[in-house]
Amino acid sequence: MRVGTDELADIALGATVLGTGGGGDPHVGRLVAEQAIEDCGPVEMVHPGEVDDDELVLVSAQMGAPTVAVEKLPGGHEPVTSVERVEKELGRTADYAMPMECGGINSTFPFAVAARKGIPLVDADGMGRAFPELQHETFNVYGVDGTPAAVGDEHGNTTLLETDTNERLEWLARGITIRMGGVAYVTDYPMSGREVNDTAIHGTMSLAMDIGRAIRTADSDPVAAIRSATANSIYGDARTLFEGKIVDVRRRTEGGFVVGTVEIDGLGPDDGTEMTIEFQNENLGARVRAAGSDDPGEWVATVPDLITVLDRETGDPVRTEALRYGARVQVLGIPTPEIMRTDAALDVWGPETFGLDTQFVPLAR
Amino acid sequence: MRVGTDELADIALGATVLGTGGGGDPHVGRLVAEQAIEDCGPVEMVHPGEVDDDELVLVSAQMGAPTVAVEKLPGGHEPVTSVERVEKELGRTADYAMPMECGGINSTFPFAVAARKGIPLVDADGMGRAFPELQHETFNVYGVDGTPAAVGDEHGNTTLLETDTNERLEWLARGITIRMGGVAYVTDYPMSGREVNDTAIHGTMSLAMDIGRAIRTADSDPVAAIRSATANSIYGDARTLFEGKIVDVRRRTEGGFVVGTVEIDGLGPDDGTEMTIEFQNENLGARVRAAGSDDPGEWVATVPDLITVLDRETGDPVRTEALRYGARVQVLGIPTPEIMRTDAALDVWGPETFGLDTQFVPLAR
Repeated sequence: MRVGTDELADIALGATVLGTGGGGDPHVGRLVAEQAIEDCGPVEMVHPGEVDDDELVLVSAQMGAPTVAVEKLPGGHEPVTSVERVEKELGRTADYAMPMECGGINSTFPFAVAARKGIPLVDADGMGRAFPELQHETFNVYGVDGTPAAVGDEHGNTTLLETDTNERLEWLARGITIRMGGVAYVTDYPMSGREVNDTAIHGTMSLAMDIGRAIRTADSDPVAAIRSATANSIYGDARTLFEGKIVDVRRRTEGGFVVGTVEIDGLGPDDGTEMTIEFQNENLGARVRAAGSDDPGEWVATVPDLITVLDRETGDPVRTEALRYGARVQVLGIPTPEIMRTDAALDVWGPETFGLDTQFVPLAR
Repeated sequence: MRVGTDELADIALGATVLGTGGGGDPHVGRLVAEQAIEDCGPVEMVHPGEVDDDELVLVSAQMGAPTVAVEKLPGGHEPVTSVERVEKELGRTADYAMPMECGGINSTFPFAVAARKGIPLVDADGMGRAFPELQHETFNVYGVDGTPAAVGDEHGNTTLLETDTNERLEWLARGITIRMGGVAYVTDYPMSGREVNDTAIHGTMSLAMDIGRAIRTADSDPVAAIRSATANSIYGDARTLFEGKIVDVRRRTEGGFVVGTVEIDGLGPDDGTEMTIEFQNENLGARVRAAGSDDPGEWVATVPDLITVLDRETGDPVRTEALRYGARVQVLGIPTPEIMRTDAALDVWGPETFGLDTQFVPLAR
């Protein structure tokens, strides 16, 4: 299918729901991609199954703390620069662009790459949500080498990395991102069509578009619209985990991430209870307890399942850097696809890997 | 001339004098280069004038805090790895190896590169001493682009950098070095023979060898031997700035550097006075005042001139990470060559650039 600026707007909105609090500002990514589509025309989006086994697919993403990203806007060439740095190293050009993650900025940026380079985009990604680190990709879980990878900044400075492990890639790229001012642009896991087919999460961009359209066209109940949009996907049914008012947000920028907790006092059906959500760029886990209790509460959802905070009235997703005191919110849980819940996947992004003291508490699919 | 293990030992010792407190542990660099020479034979060392204009010269060095470097020893292949990463990027092999700086480890490491790659080494460097940062090279002062540059670690992980300025190269490479554990191996400023001829400080390795031999063969007065070895060089005459006993060392590892001050109480001719030396990996400036005075004292020598702390008995140079309470020392000053004292050079490495509140106080040449 062809993705023009209208489809892009829906993808940006829907991917922010899948971004589970992270993945950057959808408005920024959308502006960059819109400009590219206006300059170069719409982008052809293809299913992973349409990519030949030996064709080259290059993913791209913005990397860094969302709190910094909203202050340090890209000009539009940044994602292309890191893609072309890897192309130069490989001695061939990319046949397809692809997003690395679902998230406001990172689902739309790759459309700018595709438009400006005149190549199609693969309807898939490597996280099925947003995650904070580069090893948090199905490509890593299922054996793809993350390098050669490029990290570039808005001045055209680039670093090309070759590492022994994908965790080391993350560690070095994160250090470079911090030195580049807290935000940088990365291309990693260069893949063949075969590898994409075997390891990517298929259809996530068209799902994002469906979710975005559902929110946009919902009459009165945007959450019901999101539920209905996810019902026929490889994800499970979305459900409301909690409704309430934000009463505290603790947030700090640490090691290049925004980390913290948000406290929500229950309203309506959740009156008399409290929810705490922990986040590192993205929402990681949510616990519920009786109001005023000293007990930390029961885990009701954890990474890798999606925990998305929505504005209670409009259904618009609220990213972790935009959480604020007093906001009325609805917390949505969306069960992740099977490929993200295997033992191999949980070894990479289960709750313990983020320091949460719980095993994965899967939402029923 | 041919440099075997005997000549190498003298270069290691003499370069540590020129290293002005920095440049790493000469013993480590010597072991690595000795092994390479034993494996592959002696190294042919040539004057910069012997290099053809269009031949390729690649410099290499260890980068990081000396306090970390003494704990994290190299296996021997590290400097070759970063040289070969730049070769791969340039699509040609180096015709010559060359040191980046004068200093214990960094004057001898490049001999390991030369031996293992079977290429000659250019008798020159880009600092004429040791300096803490990658823009502190005559190559940068006189207009050479620092990139493509490679930074690698002991596991074979590499990053290849392309930057808009050489200061940015330093900033990013330092961040990468910190993430690589505080020590890494760098190749930067890939140069033609013509550029080496125009911008390098000529003859520094043979001068280091002369100084090392002078200390080794001195009968009773090693400092007089050093003076005599420098007298006929492009450097000015060495002179004693101070004699005394170290009474305090303040040292911290910060931002990937070892920074601090050393306090010396005068002995012999300097009885009744005190010297303070400030350092950042290398000695940067020395002040002298009356004993017990609250006044910070007069600057008697500053960067870029060489301030080298020697063991008062043996004449062995003492690096900043080895300064310790109670040591009897003699502080030597050596005026730097003209190429290191131009206005363009002082803009890059004058005392103010290191935060010292003085202009350059040149030692008479």
